[in-house]
Amino acid sequence: MNSTISDSMPSPQSGYWSFRRTIRRFTDRYVPQQLLTDLVGKAAKAPTTGGMQLYSVIVSRQPELLAALSEQHFNQPAAREAKVMLTIVADFNRFDLWCRQRGAKPEFDNFESFTAALLDAVIFAQQLNTLLEISGLGVCYLGTTTYNASKIGSLLKLPRLTVPVVTLAIGYPADEGTEAERLPVEAVMHDETYRDYTPEIIDALFREKEEIEENRRFVAENNVATLAHVFTDVRYPGDAARIFSKDFFDYINKQGFHFPDK
Amino acid sequence: MNSTISDSMPSPQSGYWSFRRTIRRFTDRYVPQQLLTDLVGKAAKAPTTGGMQLYSVIVSRQPELLAALSEQHFNQPAAREAKVMLTIVADFNRFDLWCRQRGAKPEFDNFESFTAALLDAVIFAQQLNTLLEISGLGVCYLGTTTYNASKIGSLLKLPRLTVPVVTLAIGYPADEGTEAERLPVEAVMHDETYRDYTPEIIDALFREKEEIEENRRFVAENNVATLAHVFTDVRYPGDAARIFSKDFFDYINKQGFHFPDK
Repeated sequence: MNSTISDSMPSPQSGYWSFRRTIRRFTDRYVPQQLLTDLVGKAAKAPTTGGMQLYSVIVSRQPELLAALSEQHFNQPAAREAKVMLTIVADFNRFDLWCRQRGAKPEFDNFESFTAALLDAVIFAQQLNTLLEISGLGVCYLGTTTYNASKIGSLLKLPRLTVPVVTLAIGYPADEGTEAERLPVEAVMHDETYRDYTPEIIDALFREKEEIEENRRFVAENNVATLAHVFTDVRYPGDAARIFSKDFFDYINKQGFHFPDK
Repeated sequence: MNSTISDSMPSPQSGYWSFRRTIRRFTDRYVPQQLLTDLVGKAAKAPTTGGMQLYSVIVSRQPELLAALSEQHFNQPAAREAKVMLTIVADFNRFDLWCRQRGAKPEFDNFESFTAALLDAVIFAQQLNTLLEISGLGVCYLGTTTYNASKIGSLLKLPRLTVPVVTLAIGYPADEGTEAERLPVEAVMHDETYRDYTPEIIDALFREKEEIEENRRFVAENNVATLAHVFTDVRYPGDAARIFSKDFFDYINKQGFHFPDK
């Protein structure tokens, strides 16, 4: 391995990896376009299916456009506050156009191709997230992108074979943000094969999460029995999930990735 | 921001980000379990939908299991060579069990919930990939995980509401690997809204890729007209993609995430 590169590698011992924080409030400081171009270029070195780079990133700053996008993200604080929105798109359009232009007959209009583009887009998004954070920017993922993908797609003028999958709301941090609250490492790690969870193990893994002051407050404020009910009854009720499921499913098909029949 | 953390942040100027390499050949050096536990714990600090951590990682080392998994990855070199396979699973099972155990009524059996778990799993996978690489390990993503997800799921004993999405084949590097060959940054970056590609732009963006010696060799070896035909006719033919699409679609449904009707 090239020793110059090795020497300048970021360290896994850096506190960054253990203490990263989500930022939802941003200062007015301008985010330089040249910085974003540099970081997108580096993030594009992340792994990608067959070297195809099946993603795009749309850098939106124009105030009216940000306001319209924020509305599709339910005007959540990070969306309202974002100085720049980076919408990451699963994109087979560019590669498909190239194939056609060379006289080849691409058949990327299927669920497997959509999945490949989705994986590429999310790998790229997370690489960009890390590069933004270690450059001093604050970032909040907007998971609401798939809820209103159709309207976001219209605002961003997305063509066939492209689907927005995540959005990074960014800016320079106006506060210290919130630290990630996580289950013990053994919750997510399995030896050799999947070890399913007994009731005793579930109790042990979730105990700490349930005892966090802020989570106790959610339970009280929402007047529900347990923290689990906050997730099932308040944040992720089935009726809404089924509507979002149908909308996203229809939009992916409309964009040209045809799901198989049941 | 805490200055101790800030001071020890990995630098975006590190050569790592620009020159990362995919490794497909590994030495016999043992990958310590404690190192993997440490890196999984750090990767788990990556962003996750609503703090739910909708993923698991299965650490497989047992030789017979590795051989059986490798077969499902078409015995590609990195799969055959891997000292450890890390199968990353979109996992709503753990969270669902916790909700039920608390008397809540979770409804995560839908396409939107599957999408959230898929995003979580891939974000976690890429964070883990970075941490492995900067710790000196070699990594190759196996995108074939979704092709044979059902058989991989059987081998790994996956329960309801879990679906394998990517696999990291890892070990200590036995060679320098291959550097990422990428389109110019302007290929993937759009200003404000999506700027679709003219034929002239497509030509300009793909020219360098088409002229790479290795890519010219692929065209000659496969006896096809252009590099695009290598992708459409040899690597990603429509017939195979439609079979993989149907298999993956059926398996996700079988695992309890029900797709909407068309």
